[in-house]
Amino acid sequence: MNSFQPTVESLPPTSVTYRLRLPQGLPVHKQPLNPLSFLLRAAQVYPNRLAIAHPDVQFPVYYSYATWAQRIQNLAYALIQAGIQPGDRVAVIAPNSPVIAEAHHGVLAARAIICPINTRLTPAEVAYILDHSGSKLIIVDHEYVRLVQGVKTPVIVSNDSGRVGDSYEAFLSSGRHFSQERGWLGLEWEPNEDSPAALCYTSGTTGRPKGVITTLRGSYLAAVANAYETKMSMESVYLWILPMFHACGWTYPWAVTLACAGQITLRTVSYPLIWNHLLNSGVTHYCGAPTVQIGLVSAPEARPLPRPVSAITAGSAPTAQLIGDLEKLGITAVHVYGLTETYGPFTKCYFQPLWKDLSPEERARYLARQGHSFLTAEEARVVYPLKEGENLDSELVDVPRDGKTIGEVVTRGNIAMKEYFQDPEATRKAFRGGHFNSGDLAVIHPDGYISIQDRSKDIIISGGENASSLAIEQELASHPDVLEVSVVARPHPKWGERPMAFVILKKDAVKKWEGKHKDFEADLKRHVKPRLPGFACPEWVKVVDELPKTSTGKIQKMELRKIIAKL
Amino acid sequence: MNSFQPTVESLPPTSVTYRLRLPQGLPVHKQPLNPLSFLLRAAQVYPNRLAIAHPDVQFPVYYSYATWAQRIQNLAYALIQAGIQPGDRVAVIAPNSPVIAEAHHGVLAARAIICPINTRLTPAEVAYILDHSGSKLIIVDHEYVRLVQGVKTPVIVSNDSGRVGDSYEAFLSSGRHFSQERGWLGLEWEPNEDSPAALCYTSGTTGRPKGVITTLRGSYLAAVANAYETKMSMESVYLWILPMFHACGWTYPWAVTLACAGQITLRTVSYPLIWNHLLNSGVTHYCGAPTVQIGLVSAPEARPLPRPVSAITAGSAPTAQLIGDLEKLGITAVHVYGLTETYGPFTKCYFQPLWKDLSPEERARYLARQGHSFLTAEEARVVYPLKEGENLDSELVDVPRDGKTIGEVVTRGNIAMKEYFQDPEATRKAFRGGHFNSGDLAVIHPDGYISIQDRSKDIIISGGENASSLAIEQELASHPDVLEVSVVARPHPKWGERPMAFVILKKDAVKKWEGKHKDFEADLKRHVKPRLPGFACPEWVKVVDELPKTSTGKIQKMELRKIIAKL
Repeated sequence: MNSFQPTVESLPPTSVTYRLRLPQGLPVHKQPLNPLSFLLRAAQVYPNRLAIAHPDVQFPVYYSYATWAQRIQNLAYALIQAGIQPGDRVAVIAPNSPVIAEAHHGVLAARAIICPINTRLTPAEVAYILDHSGSKLIIVDHEYVRLVQGVKTPVIVSNDSGRVGDSYEAFLSSGRHFSQERGWLGLEWEPNEDSPAALCYTSGTTGRPKGVITTLRGSYLAAVANAYETKMSMESVYLWILPMFHACGWTYPWAVTLACAGQITLRTVSYPLIWNHLLNSGVTHYCGAPTVQIGLVSAPEARPLPRPVSAITAGSAPTAQLIGDLEKLGITAVHVYGLTETYGPFTKCYFQPLWKDLSPEERARYLARQGHSFLTAEEARVVYPLKEGENLDSELVDVPRDGKTIGEVVTRGNIAMKEYFQDPEATRKAFRGGHFNSGDLAVIHPDGYISIQDRSKDIIISGGENASSLAIEQELASHPDVLEVSVVARPHPKWGERPMAFVILKKDAVKKWEGKHKDFEADLKRHVKPRLPGFACPEWVKVVDELPKTSTGKIQKMELRKIIAKL
Repeated sequence: MNSFQPTVESLPPTSVTYRLRLPQGLPVHKQPLNPLSFLLRAAQVYPNRLAIAHPDVQFPVYYSYATWAQRIQNLAYALIQAGIQPGDRVAVIAPNSPVIAEAHHGVLAARAIICPINTRLTPAEVAYILDHSGSKLIIVDHEYVRLVQGVKTPVIVSNDSGRVGDSYEAFLSSGRHFSQERGWLGLEWEPNEDSPAALCYTSGTTGRPKGVITTLRGSYLAAVANAYETKMSMESVYLWILPMFHACGWTYPWAVTLACAGQITLRTVSYPLIWNHLLNSGVTHYCGAPTVQIGLVSAPEARPLPRPVSAITAGSAPTAQLIGDLEKLGITAVHVYGLTETYGPFTKCYFQPLWKDLSPEERARYLARQGHSFLTAEEARVVYPLKEGENLDSELVDVPRDGKTIGEVVTRGNIAMKEYFQDPEATRKAFRGGHFNSGDLAVIHPDGYISIQDRSKDIIISGGENASSLAIEQELASHPDVLEVSVVARPHPKWGERPMAFVILKKDAVKKWEGKHKDFEADLKRHVKPRLPGFACPEWVKVVDELPKTSTGKIQKMELRKIIAKL
C-alpha cells in the first residue's frame, strides 16, 4: 500500500500549550462543547502527523498538525485584529483548499460565526447572502474574486499558494504579530456552547435562500457522530470531494480532526485526481452524492483499491448497480441522509447482519433506505404532514409502520439547527410540533427503517395516487443501459400528472441506441413494467447528454420542469 | 472463529416507540444528554441482537436488545411504583450480572441516581454508605444479602435467575403491570443534563469513603470517549471482568450499548471461564488492572486468540513483560488512566507510529505512560502541588516538560466529577485552582505525555530524593523470575526512607529459589542496579505468596506498610 507520506517539518512538540483562556466562573465539571477541542487535541497528541495536504496546485502545501494549528491560531488573531467581535459573521468563498478548512477552526477560535458561501452562485446571489448575513469580513479565493467585486465589506484574498506575497498569508502573519506570542491562552473559549458556529445558506430552489444557524454544541456532537459512524481513526485519510461550503462539509472539517486523521483537499471534482489519491495517497474515506460516485466508478482510471474505502453517500439513495460497482472496487457505500438544517447526515442505513445472505439486488434495496438516527441524533420520525388549516403547535402523529403510508420526516435534538437566521416566520413553520420538519416525504417500514419517497414538491400525483419519483428512478436505473436518470411530473390531461424520465445512457449504450431512442424507450418501459404499479410507470422517456445539477451534485428537478413547460 | 450466537427469541421489531416523554418547553435543537439514549437507539436499530449474556450460572440468560430494553423499562416503572422520586439514590449490591447492568439504565430511566456498592465491603462499611447516600431502596444480589441484614431501607433481592419466583423478577413484573403498557412514553426524560447519574464511593484507603457525584452529561460524554477510543462497534463483544460497581464499570454499561455491541457478565474473576469466552464467545474487548491481566496470561488455558482483542488496562502501568505476553496471545493492551472522580479513564497512552520500530522493551517503556487526555476530556495537566499555606484559589502552575519534575495530575471539564456528595470541604480541596486534583504524582515528558510516578502517599523519600515506587516496580518486574511486585517505603535510620520490595515469583522460579531467597534478593538487586539511581534501589526484598489486593485488583500498599510496621 502506497501511503501519502510527504515530508512534514519536524517540529519540537513540546513548547505549545493547546488550551484557551477559560471564561470566569466555569464549574470544574463543565466545559462548553466546541469542535475546536478536536484540533487542539490532535495537535497535542500528534503534532508531527500530516493534518492537511493540498497537492494538486502550482504550490502544493502539506501541514503537520502543529503547523496547521499555528496557522489557525494566527487566523483567529488576525480576525480579532481586523475588528471581528464574538458573534460576528465571517464569509468564506473558496473551493476545497486549506483556507476554507482553516476558517472552520479559526473563525470559531475568534468566537465568530463562519458563513461559507457556495462558489457557484451569481454575484447577485452572493450579494444577497453577504447582506442578509451581515458578514463583517470576506475571505475569498482568487478564482472567485469576481463574485465580490464592488461589495463594501472588507475582503481578504487568498491566492491559495501558502507563500509569501499571498495576501491571505500576510493576513495570517499580521495575526501572529498581533498575538505577541500569547498563543492559545491569549484567546478566550466561547462560554456558551449554544452560540452559533456557522451560518449556511440553503440552495433555495424556491424563493430566497434561508440562513441555517447551527451551534457549537451541535457541531461538536454531529462531528462525534460522523467520526464514530464512519469509523474514522488516526489511521484514516479523508479525501475532500464534497464541497466544504455545503453545510460545513457535513461537519467533516471537525470530524477529521476529532479522529486525528489526515485530509486532502482538491479544488475541483476531477476523476483522474481523485483516482490518483484513491490509489496512491492512502485515502480511506470520502463523501459524495450518488452522481459523483457514478462518475467515479465510470472513470477510465477506476480499478480495485488496495485498502478498504468508505464512500459516505447522501443526496439521493445509491442504486443496486452503483453499490455493486463500488463494491467491486473495494469501496463500501455508507448511505446517510440529512439536510443543511441537520448539520448534514443525521440518519444512516444501519447494516443488518442478515442482509449478507441476500442477492446484491435485494441487499441494495435495503441499503437504499435512509435507516435510523445517528449516534447523538434524536429519533427520525415519519409523521402526518401539516393539514390545511392545522395549527403549527398540534402534536405530531406518527404514520403506521407499514412501509406504505407517506408522511414527512421530522427530527429534533442536538443536531437539528437552532433557527433560520433573522427569519422567525420560516423558523416557526419549520419547527411545527416541536420538531424540525424536513419537507422530505417518507414511509416507515415494519422494521423501523425510514425510507424517503420524495421531496414533498417532487412527488407525482397520477390519478390520485402518490408516485415517488425516487422509487421510479431506482427501478429505471436497474436497466443495464442506464447510467443516470431523473423523473419528474408532467401535466397530463386525463391523470393530472404522469411521470417523465430523463435518461443518460452508458457510454457503450449510446452507440447501440443511436437513432433508435424510440426503441430504447419501449425497452425501458418493458423493463420497469413488472417492477412498478401502472400509475408509476413513466409515460415519456427522453434521452439526454447531461442532467442539470447543483454544485453539490444534486439534480435540479426544477430545471427539468422548465424543459417540460416548454414541450 | 466461533462466535457467541445463542438463540434469542425473534421479536417483532415494529411495535415499540423508543422515546420518552419530553419535558415542556425544550427547544427543538436541544436534547439534554443522557446515556439512556444509547440503549434506546440500540433497541431500535438492532432489536434482535444479543444485548447481554449471563452464561455461567445455574440459569443462564440471554437477552436481545428488544427484550432487555423492555426489562429496563419495567425496572424504571417498578422503581417509580416503589416511591422512588427524581434525584433519589438507589443502591445496588451485586457482582457482574444483568441486574446491575440493568440498574445502570433503569435507575436513570426513573430519573434516580444509581449508587453501586462494592461487594467486598464489610456490613459496617455498607451501612455507612447506605446512610451517607440516603439510599431509598437497595437492590441486592442473593449472595450479598448478609451485607444488608438489619438495615431499615427497603430491599429487593435478586436470585440472579431471570425466572419466575425470583423476587427481583417479580419486582420487574410489578413495574410492567404498573406501567399499564404506557411504554417509554409514559416515562419522562430528565430535563437537566447536569443532574446526577451516579453516586460511587471511593475505596477510601484513608478515612471514610467519599461519594463521587457524576452527571448525565458527563456519563454520556465519557461513554462516547470509551467507545470511540477502544473502537467498539456493533461487531464487538465486551467481557465483564472489571466489577461494574467500580466507578460504574468505567461507563462501559453505557459505552457497550452506544456501540450496539453485546456484553457477557461473569459473577467472579475465573480464569477458566474468561478463557472459555475469549476463545469461544467472540470477545473483542475487556477491561482489567494489570494484576488481572497477569493472571490471565499466566492461566494454563492461555493460547493465541483467533481474533484481535483489546485489553483496556488501568490501575497501574502494564510492564513490558505483560505487554509482550499479551501480544503473543493476540491481545493488544490499551493503557488508560483515571479515577472514580473522572468517570474511570480520562487519558490514554496514544500509540505513535514511530514506536513500531522500537524494541519491545523500549516500546513498553513508552506504553507505560499515561499519555494524553481522551476525546471529550479536557487537558490532563501536571502542576506544582499545593504548598504549605497556599490558597486553594491560587492559579495552577504547570511543571516544565522535562520528564523529571514531579507535579500533581489535574484535569477539569465534562468528564470530571461534579462534587463529593455532601462534603463541600473535601470538594473544595479536590477542586484547588478550578481543576480536579487527582492526588497522583507525575512528570510530563518533552513530547507532552504524562507519566504517573506515584500516588502522593506512595512516593519514597530517600535521602531527600523522590523515588517513584511505580518506576522501581517497573524495573523489578523486568527480572525474568518476577511475576508481580510491589514497592513501599520503609523507615531507615540514615536515609529517612528506603524502598522495600514484596515479590511474587513465577511458578517455575519458586522451586529454583526454594530456600535460597537471599540469593534471589542479591540477584534481583544486581539486575536493577544498572537501571535505577542508587537511592531508588530496594534495600530489602521479601518473597511472598500473594499480595493484598482490593476487589478491583489494586495492590493495597497500606497493608504492606502494616506488615513493615511489625518487622
